[in-house]
Amino acid sequence: MTRTVYVNGQYLPEHEATVSIFDRGFLMADGVYEVTSVLDGKLIDFDGHIKRLHRSLSELDMAAPCSDEDLIAMHRELVRLNNIDQGMIYLQVTRGNPGDRSFVFPPADLPPTIVAFTQDIPNLADAPAAKTGFRVISIPDLRWSRRDIKTVQLLYPSMGKMAAKKAGVDDSWFVEDGAVTEGTSNNAYIVKGNRIITRQLTTDILHGITRAAVLRFAAEAQFEVEERPFTIEEAQAADEAFSTAASIFVMPVVEIDGKPVGSGKPGPVATRLRELYLDEMRKAAV
Amino acid sequence: MTRTVYVNGQYLPEHEATVSIFDRGFLMADGVYEVTSVLDGKLIDFDGHIKRLHRSLSELDMAAPCSDEDLIAMHRELVRLNNIDQGMIYLQVTRGNPGDRSFVFPPADLPPTIVAFTQDIPNLADAPAAKTGFRVISIPDLRWSRRDIKTVQLLYPSMGKMAAKKAGVDDSWFVEDGAVTEGTSNNAYIVKGNRIITRQLTTDILHGITRAAVLRFAAEAQFEVEERPFTIEEAQAADEAFSTAASIFVMPVVEIDGKPVGSGKPGPVATRLRELYLDEMRKAAV
Repeated sequence: MTRTVYVNGQYLPEHEATVSIFDRGFLMADGVYEVTSVLDGKLIDFDGHIKRLHRSLSELDMAAPCSDEDLIAMHRELVRLNNIDQGMIYLQVTRGNPGDRSFVFPPADLPPTIVAFTQDIPNLADAPAAKTGFRVISIPDLRWSRRDIKTVQLLYPSMGKMAAKKAGVDDSWFVEDGAVTEGTSNNAYIVKGNRIITRQLTTDILHGITRAAVLRFAAEAQFEVEERPFTIEEAQAADEAFSTAASIFVMPVVEIDGKPVGSGKPGPVATRLRELYLDEMRKAAV
Repeated sequence: MTRTVYVNGQYLPEHEATVSIFDRGFLMADGVYEVTSVLDGKLIDFDGHIKRLHRSLSELDMAAPCSDEDLIAMHRELVRLNNIDQGMIYLQVTRGNPGDRSFVFPPADLPPTIVAFTQDIPNLADAPAAKTGFRVISIPDLRWSRRDIKTVQLLYPSMGKMAAKKAGVDDSWFVEDGAVTEGTSNNAYIVKGNRIITRQLTTDILHGITRAAVLRFAAEAQFEVEERPFTIEEAQAADEAFSTAASIFVMPVVEIDGKPVGSGKPGPVATRLRELYLDEMRKAAV
């Protein structure tokens, strides 16, 4: 089935969806994005994604591309037009098309480029990977220093995913100055007893929307939450490890650099947090 | 005048030149580029740019998009169609349009996206800025760690250009671990007596095509060349400073963080190297 996608106010067949070669998203990676999950045809934690979008735009001196009401209406229309029960909606906003290439930002009143499209994933909530868990390798974190801004500068995360694929595993965790920063497109955690440990929010990592929700549910479920860096060695010796992201919810990590974590199978804490997250977020979906 | 630009084998009016929203250059900054100067309607150091393009592609596991003969023919056709006497040709190659978004690279046989366009700059060789010199500020180098690959991840260099603009100067020099790496889109040099000092080639900086030529001409003109990092303080205390890039050739730098370098005016070494470069490269243009 041909998807209907969104480009600057128009709903178009995916094969007709284009941007100018002068778009700053294409020439300079001058754009930000969000990915929102859809379950039961509804948007998961959309408020969180919109808030982070505004933060990313603001950090880059970009204005909001339209009202929040327009954004949610557009997301819902994409769900409806593409008949999505489970899947994702990708939204990208760039600094627009100035008609030529320059390192100097275009005038602030240049209209931004807004692009959005759906990905239909019927078994998103019931993903087979969640039952076996991710195996990961560690690689050096070579990304730019402002990972708190969700930009489309995704070449290195993509290279990290390929490094994992070549190693026959599912993902890479980035390591900087001896400690894990995060996964290629997810936040990283370890579990020790009743304690959940994950890196604190700085410019070093993405401020995960799923992370915020999972830590909230974890605290409500009487887990201790400790926000600090951890090493690969500490993770390998932990009871459990997991990753979170809008597209994978809570994903157990069962092996790191060839060493099993805990039992080498998805553990009770990650499994419980995944259930809690899915239950609560489905209830709150819009 | 409407430019004629090149997109995947077609010569098009610039307003019709588009790429898919699924192009990996747009979604993931998964692309590389080159900028070649044109003087007297001829290409400056095109061999050097093609060699670096191949290196960038190779580092990212991307195949050559077409033969070198096709690339030079396309560049010459763009010069002809747009009647360029002095200016630049921008070339971008991305990993293509897989039709959807994924961190996993598409199959290696997916056709790359090739985009190229001209910029008409009648006074490129005789640029007014070369007579007064650049004033620069220093800012932290927050870019990713593989600056030797000429990718389109240019958001931070663009932010650096804007930081300079806001400070009322011409460019920013990036500083990492106390030493200058390079400018936003150029290599950085200082001059002490008969010695030209510039950072050695590692993954920390772009392997400038203009840099290679200028250092060759400098050695031929009996300057000593010393390749090592230098600090902002050392640059401020130098006899001269300058930057090189395909688009600015050799550009004197006369002020760094508010302090004049040497006399505060373009010095004899930068001026001579600029003349040497322009003379030699014009002779060798194709």
